[in-house]
Parts: sequence; structure tokens; C-alpha cells
Amino acid sequence: MKVLNVGIASFLPGLEASGTEYVALDWRPPAHGDPALAWKAAQLLADPRVDAANAEAFRRLTSSRPVLTGADLARSCISALDHERTGQRLLLHAGPPLEWSRASGPVRGALAGAALWEGWAATAADAEVLFESGAVALAPCHHHGAVGPMAGVISPSMPLWIVEDPATDRRAFCNFNEGLGKVLRFGAYGPDVLERLAWMRDGLFPAVKAALAALGPVELRPLMARALQMGDELHNRNAAATALFSRVLAQGLVKANLAASTLSAVLEYLSANDHVFLNLSMAASKLAADAAGDVPRSTLCTAMARNGTDFGIRLSGLPGRWFTAPAPVLDGLFFAGYGRADAARDLGDSAITETVGLGGMSLAAAPAIVRFAGGGAAAAMEGTLGMYALCHGEHPGFCIPGLDFRGAPTGIDARKVVDLNRAPIINTGIAHRLAGIGQIGAGITAAPLACFEQGLAALADAWPLAEP
Amino acid sequence: MKVLNVGIASFLPGLEASGTEYVALDWRPPAHGDPALAWKAAQLLADPRVDAANAEAFRRLTSSRPVLTGADLARSCISALDHERTGQRLLLHAGPPLEWSRASGPVRGALAGAALWEGWAATAADAEVLFESGAVALAPCHHHGAVGPMAGVISPSMPLWIVEDPATDRRAFCNFNEGLGKVLRFGAYGPDVLERLAWMRDGLFPAVKAALAALGPVELRPLMARALQMGDELHNRNAAATALFSRVLAQGLVKANLAASTLSAVLEYLSANDHVFLNLSMAASKLAADAAGDVPRSTLCTAMARNGTDFGIRLSGLPGRWFTAPAPVLDGLFFAGYGRADAARDLGDSAITETVGLGGMSLAAAPAIVRFAGGGAAAAMEGTLGMYALCHGEHPGFCIPGLDFRGAPTGIDARKVVDLNRAPIINTGIAHRLAGIGQIGAGITAAPLACFEQGLAALADAWPLAEP
Repeated sequence: MKVLNVGIASFLPGLEASGTEYVALDWRPPAHGDPALAWKAAQLLADPRVDAANAEAFRRLTSSRPVLTGADLARSCISALDHERTGQRLLLHAGPPLEWSRASGPVRGALAGAALWEGWAATAADAEVLFESGAVALAPCHHHGAVGPMAGVISPSMPLWIVEDPATDRRAFCNFNEGLGKVLRFGAYGPDVLERLAWMRDGLFPAVKAALAALGPVELRPLMARALQMGDELHNRNAAATALFSRVLAQGLVKANLAASTLSAVLEYLSANDHVFLNLSMAASKLAADAAGDVPRSTLCTAMARNGTDFGIRLSGLPGRWFTAPAPVLDGLFFAGYGRADAARDLGDSAITETVGLGGMSLAAAPAIVRFAGGGAAAAMEGTLGMYALCHGEHPGFCIPGLDFRGAPTGIDARKVVDLNRAPIINTGIAHRLAGIGQIGAGITAAPLACFEQGLAALADAWPLAEP
Repeated sequence: MKVLNVGIASFLPGLEASGTEYVALDWRPPAHGDPALAWKAAQLLADPRVDAANAEAFRRLTSSRPVLTGADLARSCISALDHERTGQRLLLHAGPPLEWSRASGPVRGALAGAALWEGWAATAADAEVLFESGAVALAPCHHHGAVGPMAGVISPSMPLWIVEDPATDRRAFCNFNEGLGKVLRFGAYGPDVLERLAWMRDGLFPAVKAALAALGPVELRPLMARALQMGDELHNRNAAATALFSRVLAQGLVKANLAASTLSAVLEYLSANDHVFLNLSMAASKLAADAAGDVPRSTLCTAMARNGTDFGIRLSGLPGRWFTAPAPVLDGLFFAGYGRADAARDLGDSAITETVGLGGMSLAAAPAIVRFAGGGAAAAMEGTLGMYALCHGEHPGFCIPGLDFRGAPTGIDARKVVDLNRAPIINTGIAHRLAGIGQIGAGITAAPLACFEQGLAALADAWPLAEP
């Protein structure tokens, strides 16, 4: 007797014990066995109109051409943040919409820190009152053309990178990277954190702005393509991209006639922080994902983002809607003295990189990251290889050397996610669950399937399905 | 009938035709079937004194700690080049010793160019007379603690990088990289080439010297280890190392209070040339290889170098001696309009990188290079995996991500090369065979086995073999 066991792991010990030859297939029924949803997924998978819509969304996503054109203060980039004009103080945060009452520790820490830093409150307790009372409103970065890593808090006086696509005139913004450890985006808000933010506004930003003006537009796509060939996946690892970008920016800095001490401090910042480019990778990814948005019937994912409480996704065919589920708590590599019990739920807009084929989707490009999580080069390869089954296609511009320069798996198709019960891989940092502490680790996680199941059901309901 | 065919390819068509099942083993008798040499190799392979000597040479090679301490003009670094003191004009060149009469086109071009540039001759024809008459003497870079890529010509007024090992006080030198295309090291010597050399002496060198003085010593080993994890093999690909090094050097340049125009020009040089670090990789490799030299009985290779006519190697147990064979002509990827018929013989001291585990030995770290030659990631992996059999061990500091961070194959053992008839892989550039033209391609080649066969025979003769 030879046995083919399809997905029922509990049969295996018996087969082992009896010495029976078997092949075990790792399979579960589509949509976790929900027949109505599985049927919707099957119909959408069989619908050529969806295929055509996805092809169009994929084309837009992968032909996006991000160009760094400048930097400016958030209130100048995003009019809703200019409270002198609107009459309403507002802070942006990562992920889908979030009320203060449901916000996690690190997000509360970051919001309070931003309120302190803007001079809206004198103490963290005062700041909390502002949020509880609605004196300061909250909105997702994603609703204002922006993205922010981790807590992703953007306040009016923070400088933002401006990335544009000349073909579509679309723009995307992301804040500047603070470095690692005790930083606002991980929920820390001590005096050192706020001082650093002030230097970024008063020292770094004018220098960068002048350098970019001297340089002219900087094409990001070739730089990103190159970094993927140098061990970066442009989410958790940005060492090559940061070095390549620093070399470009340095030329602008020198042309900008800055004071020697400013020039030194900015070069030191670029040199000491291998994640400077993360925020540019995120803005470029946001630009590409937005380009793919709003294609009728498309089941491609156009955002994955976490607010520290919920994990949310958006689908191209249902613009403006979020499909959410509880954000996962991460297992990963923790800094000494911390463990899973200290970890906040998954956090940040940075999964926009995975949305366009980078980060966890391109894990094979960055085996060094998997090593952090105790895996090796083979695990990195397997990670990426497993993602092709979820994706519409292979990115024509982002290639992975270890896979013979195969294009990165790109364009996450909710139909396929639901049909295979397989979630996109996401690389991420881990914040402490309490406000005021900061980063405690990094790891690899997965998007909740429930988001894709809800989204796919809503899409099937919104658009008439093909006749069976 | 099942057949095991050991190394006789001509039997295979018959087996194929008759449908006989067979396994073909790719094997050739040790030392190409030379019984005397094969016996010497076998005795050396069985000799524990050789194993111990190689372990010591390997330890010295892999514990070398290269530190960039400064830059200076060649005549200040290497006293033999100071002709006002010695009374004899001298130029250094790549590879083993070479007389002008045997020099190839690109080496003649580079030597003539250096003589013109030093003001020793007014025309290329005048320069030739200087070399023919002995008015200008020639010596290998390797004989003066230096290495040079391709023609490797070092003249008194050229600036050199100074790399030192603080543990041993050993020093090694390499010239500055000129960039690609029409450059002296590929045999070009037009006015643009000489002008660029003048700028490197008068603009680049003082700036770099001041920057290094401001920075203090720069540790190269961590930077090299990091670049290996970013797609470089530190011979034909130095993109990551150059970007990382540029970021460090930029901080020194800013501290050095240079004129803005100088600062701009130097940053432009660092930005436009991904091979700036090659010359530092070579100096660091020379330092490590020299540390492994002169261990009695050691069969480890301590230099592989080509002068455009001969390929030469040195062995640790026979210091000061070269074992040479004709340098191979390369197949590779040629620039448009050029082919194999235009190619010079293999050239340059840069195979010092392979000598210490980098370059072709670490091909698996840089699949992008194999792609140039029409291969893929698998070919890169196979290339490096095949080198472990030739090497004493795995480099403890230089790890290859795609091989699960296995140490690079390091310490080429002449016993194993001869026993297996397998040559070290070398990555290299290709010069035009005529003087004055420059680079026409790049490719992957192999060291001639004959060098190792001669060297091993000489070593067996020089040191009493163990009793059988």
C-alpha cells in the first residue's frame, strides 16, 4: 500500500509507525473550508475580467517611476496638517483608521511625543487629554498620500521626503528616519528623542532640501534595483541603498555651500544609520501601490498597513476601503532582556514595501535577514519562491540575483491568498508594548488571512460575478 | 551490464548508442598522469609536517588585519622608485619579472605612458628607447610590497594607498583606480589618460591624504566582510565596498577643509567609479598573502599574478621564487566591436584577491558577475563550491550569504591543485592586445596548472620528503 495524505497531519504518525510508504501533501481547503467564500474565490479566479483588471493594475504598479524631487515640512506637503488654516490640529499615524481609545502603547507614546514636540502639551498626561477630547484629531498617513514606519506619526513640523512620478504627477511622502533604538516611531518620547527630532527639522532638513535642490531630481528605481542586487530587500535591510543614496546626496550637500559643521553632522547621520533609505523605499512603494489603485474588479492588494491594533489591507477594485483583523504579535529576534511578552502588536506602514514586491516578498535577496531569525539562505529562497503563487507576476525592474535574476513576486492577488490560505510574508521591527520604551527586536511575520477573506468577499459582492 | 566510466570520455558515445546504463566520473590521473610528480604530490599530501605548515600559513593569512593608514606618492613609499637617490629610473609592473623585449602591447603602452607622464620621454617612440636601453629599469610591484591592477604600472609620482597590519607592522601599497575604459592600466596613454593621472596626483591625492589624516586609521576587514554580503567579490565587483568606503571617506573629506571645487570633484570621482575599492582590496589581500609567506614546507599559494606574458605564482615554502607559464588568453564578455582575437593575455596583480579567498574563489557572493559571462546563480555557487577542494580551509572573517554564510574557500594548496588537476578560478578584466587602446571586456579564467606543477615539484625537491 502506498498512501497519498492530503492535508491531514494526524494520520501521519500511524503511517510512520506501520512503516507504510506515504507522500504528505500540505493542503487545506480554500478559504479555510468556508464554502461560500471558497466559491466566490473560485468564481473570481475563473473570471477573465478580473485577470484583465489585475493585469492593468500590475502594469501600473510595476511601471511606476519614483523620482525624489525634494523635501519639505509636513504642513507644507499635506494641507490637512496646516492647523492654522484648517482650525483643527491633526496627527497622522500608520495603518488603518484608529481611535485613541484603541491605540496601543507605542502608538500612544509616539502620538504623545509628537504633541509634546509640537508644543501642544507640556506633559504626556496633558497630551493624552488632547487626544481623548478630540482637540487633536487622528488620521491614517495613507489617507493623505503618506506612509510612516512603525507608529508612523507625522506632525506638522516634521520634514518629509517628496517622491513623484513624472508620468502621472502622483506624489507620495514619508518622514525622515530617526535611526534605531529609542526613537519616536517605536513609541519613545524622552528628551533625547525630541531633541533629535528638532535637529532633523532644524539641521538635517534644510541641508537635505538644499542638497536636493542642487542635485535636481533623483531617480529612485535604478538605485532600488541595484540595492536588491546588493543584499537589501528594502524593508528590514537598506544598507546598500542607504550607502548608494548617501553617495548621491553627498554631491548635492557639497554643492549646497553648507556650514562645515552642518555638512559633517549630516554626513555622520547618513553614515551611522543604515535605514535612511527605508523611508524613501516606503514613499516609492506608496507611489507604485497608489498607481495600481482603483482598477474596477482588480483583486490586487494596494496597501498592507498596521496601526499597532489592527492589520489592514486595501484592494484595487474597492478604493478607499480597509479590511482589517487584529494585528499579529511577533515572534522574532529580541534584543537582550526582552521577549515575546514585551512585544507590541505588529505596527507600521512599512508593509507597503511588501505590497509592491519588496521586503518579505524579496526575502531571497537578503539572506542576512533570515539569519537574524535563525534561518539560512535556503529559508530565504523558499520564502520568496512560496510568494510567486500569490502574486500576479514578476517585477520587470526588481530582480533577485540568487534566483537567477528572476523578477520579484509582485502584485499580491487576494484570490490566490484566499484560495491557497497562504499569507504574504512581512519583515518588520518589533516595538515594546508600552509607551516610551522603543524598539526591542525584529522579525518575520505574515499578514492575517482574515483581511484578504473579508476583502475578497466584499469585492465579490460589489462587482457582479461571472455567470457560472 | 552497468558501467562506471572513470574519465575516458571517448567511451561514452558507444555506451550511449548501445543503451547501456553508465555513470561517468570526471576524473583525470593526478598531475596529468606524470608519475614522478603525482608521487611527489601524494607524499606531500600524506606529510603531516606540510599540514602543520599550511595550518600556520592559513592562520597568518586569515588573521591579517588590514588598516588603511594613509596615502603618499610612490617615491616616498618605495625607496627604489626615488631615482634622485638611487640614480636609476625604475617603473614597477604587474606579475612576475618581465623584460621589455617580452612585454605585451598593453604593458608596453602603460610603461610608455608612465614614462611620458613622468616627463622622461616626449614621445612613445622615445620612451621605448629608454626601456630597450635599460635607461629605465623594470621590476615587479610584488618585489616592492606593492600590487597594481592590469598592467600595474607604478611610477614615482603616482599616489599609493598605504595599508598596514598593526600586529605585524607589515605594509602593502596599491595605486589609485583610474576608472574604466581608456586608462593607463589597460595600456592606453592618450592625453586624456595622462591628464587624469595628473589630476589624481594634484587634486585627488592631496584631498585623500588630508581626509585620511582627519579620519585616522580605517579598518578594512569589516568593510570587506560587509561588502561580501552585498554582492561584491572584491575583485571584478566592488560596488558595495566602494559605496561603503566612500561614505567613510566623505566624512574625512569634509573635516579636511578642502576647497568646495576639490571636494565636489573628489566626491564625483568616488561616485562615478565603482572600482575605487578594488585597489584597496588588492592592497589588503597583498598584506594577508605576504603574512602567509615564508612558512617552511608550506604548499599554500601566496601570490598569483600576470604580467601580460607570463602567469606566475609563489608558494609560501619557497619565498622569493616565481613559477610561471604562459598567461592564458581569455574568453569573456567583450565590449561591442571587440572579440577574442583582440584580447591580450591575462594581466595584472589583481589575482592577489583570489589568493586570499576573494574574487573568483568567492564567486558565489557575486552572481551578477557570472551573469556577465552568460551563467547564472547556480554557476556562481558551483564555482565557489568547487574551490573548497583546493583550499586549506574556510575564511573565518569572509562569509558568503548564498552558501549559508560559509567562509570563503581560502588558502590555495598546490598539493590539491596538482592532485585534482583543478585550477583556481580568477575573475579579470580584458585588455586589447595592442598598446594604446584600453579595456575591451571582462571574464572568468583559470590559473595555469603548470605553475602549480612546477612549484610543487620545486618544493618537493627543496624540502626532504617524509619516509614512505
